[in-house]
Amino acid sequence: MEPFEVHILGCGSALPTTRHNASSQVIRIGNKQFMIDCGEGTQLQLRRGHVHFSFINHIFISHLHGDHCFGLIGLISTFGLLGRTAPLHIYADQMLEKLMKPQLEFYCKGMNYPIFFHSIDAARHTVIFEDNTITVETLPQKHRIPCCGFLFKEKPKKRHLIGDAANYYNIPAYMRASIKDGADFVTAEGETIPNSKLTKDADPSRSYAYCSDTLPCPENNMLIKGVDLLYHEATFAESEKGRAATTFHSTARQAATIAKDADAKRLVIGHFSSRYDDCEMLINEAREIFPNSINAEEGMVISI
Amino acid sequence: MEPFEVHILGCGSALPTTRHNASSQVIRIGNKQFMIDCGEGTQLQLRRGHVHFSFINHIFISHLHGDHCFGLIGLISTFGLLGRTAPLHIYADQMLEKLMKPQLEFYCKGMNYPIFFHSIDAARHTVIFEDNTITVETLPQKHRIPCCGFLFKEKPKKRHLIGDAANYYNIPAYMRASIKDGADFVTAEGETIPNSKLTKDADPSRSYAYCSDTLPCPENNMLIKGVDLLYHEATFAESEKGRAATTFHSTARQAATIAKDADAKRLVIGHFSSRYDDCEMLINEAREIFPNSINAEEGMVISI
Repeated sequence: MEPFEVHILGCGSALPTTRHNASSQVIRIGNKQFMIDCGEGTQLQLRRGHVHFSFINHIFISHLHGDHCFGLIGLISTFGLLGRTAPLHIYADQMLEKLMKPQLEFYCKGMNYPIFFHSIDAARHTVIFEDNTITVETLPQKHRIPCCGFLFKEKPKKRHLIGDAANYYNIPAYMRASIKDGADFVTAEGETIPNSKLTKDADPSRSYAYCSDTLPCPENNMLIKGVDLLYHEATFAESEKGRAATTFHSTARQAATIAKDADAKRLVIGHFSSRYDDCEMLINEAREIFPNSINAEEGMVISI
Repeated sequence: MEPFEVHILGCGSALPTTRHNASSQVIRIGNKQFMIDCGEGTQLQLRRGHVHFSFINHIFISHLHGDHCFGLIGLISTFGLLGRTAPLHIYADQMLEKLMKPQLEFYCKGMNYPIFFHSIDAARHTVIFEDNTITVETLPQKHRIPCCGFLFKEKPKKRHLIGDAANYYNIPAYMRASIKDGADFVTAEGETIPNSKLTKDADPSRSYAYCSDTLPCPENNMLIKGVDLLYHEATFAESEKGRAATTFHSTARQAATIAKDADAKRLVIGHFSSRYDDCEMLINEAREIFPNSINAEEGMVISI
């Protein structure tokens, strides 16, 4: 199967620490790379992680708190210095373009690539990106400002043509695509060979959900039902549940409860508060509810 | 003597590398801290260097290229999150405030401290900051956009009162300040004791010059004459002299020539191009001209 990987560039929260970087991830699906969030220092994390800058064409910003977007202007400038020509698409609350306008006018003069801002209505669940193999949907979140998560889903894939059967029935090349789509084959003698004799099941269509920053949103559980990997913020431990509620964040236990109730296959928690020198306590709390959980870490690459 | 230290937070140039951070320094003089430049990631470097955020009240920005100022908005936000109440003064080209205006309006809502922008005319040599013990002057630089260096100078200090002499002549407390300023003392018997018998020389007034980014500016040599420490950009080696000229940067050799001709006591070079994995070659070139030279490094604290 083609790679479907989540590369964690930063999983800290608002206050800087020497343990974590601000939020950012690169999602690699096949030969495509997408970025989610872009906190300060993201371009340095890309360098550290040996990520090719030029393959990033789409950046999804969950919300406008600085730890999720202050790295954008630096990244945009560096793209320019590196001679980028490919368009860059940024999906974010419409306010982002306004906030960045004077900087973009000043710093992007003479750059050889265009930037397209795509406005997200964080309150609505909708498909905001689609190409031949994947879709990206928003997941409305509950935070102090408009905020959404993102659900990456592979589209249904073609069935595998069985090589021996294709040779035996001498299936011409031009018919193979439709057979992979499920068509039967009619031989020159008029015999109908059912598709089930010619093909094997397609690879499963994988999915990844990113939920940060937010109070628990069980109303999204249907949208992320059975997701292969769920990244959920767990800013606080259960002992700080009250603080989590007033700041519109989740505890590790709440993140795990979402993973469990949504039948996620795996959970990775992140967006750790700067108060935790060590996030062991957080993952222990999560695993009590949902054992297949791990802590995010800078540089971690999770294969789906 | 009170400390006079230069703490290097970043000494790389425009493109991010894993070896260097973007430009920023903290200058500590006595119990005061000043920041020069604030590239992306500066707040993280402050954390790494255990620098107290709350003691930084004055930030001097040499010019508006991103590697010298993209860290400001993150730092300003973090100051807010940390509950800062002290005013923050930013000295920069007047365009900076315009570039940051929408962000400041959006992110500083509800913060408990005011930000004052002080406009710098980079083309003029002038005193832009003064308090009871130091002055900060601009050093006009030659770069692709308006740019200035900064000269930090301690004001002349008071002479040291000799304890034994003060006791012997029974000098009253209220007269000590004027004697430290150079006054003679007249005893109750009418005898005039010359100041030279009562005091020792004052500590020297130290100075620090920061020159980045720029072509060599020998016309500033008179301004920085005899400076205790000169930080000078050395983006390139001599083999890239042509590139240095077209991009309005200096070579290590040119930096050292400025240090030599200005009778600087020590030189530290920085703002290294991302092309150099190792800056040994740069410092070797500098030392051929000016032996008392070192390479800047992240985390380095240079005592003056």
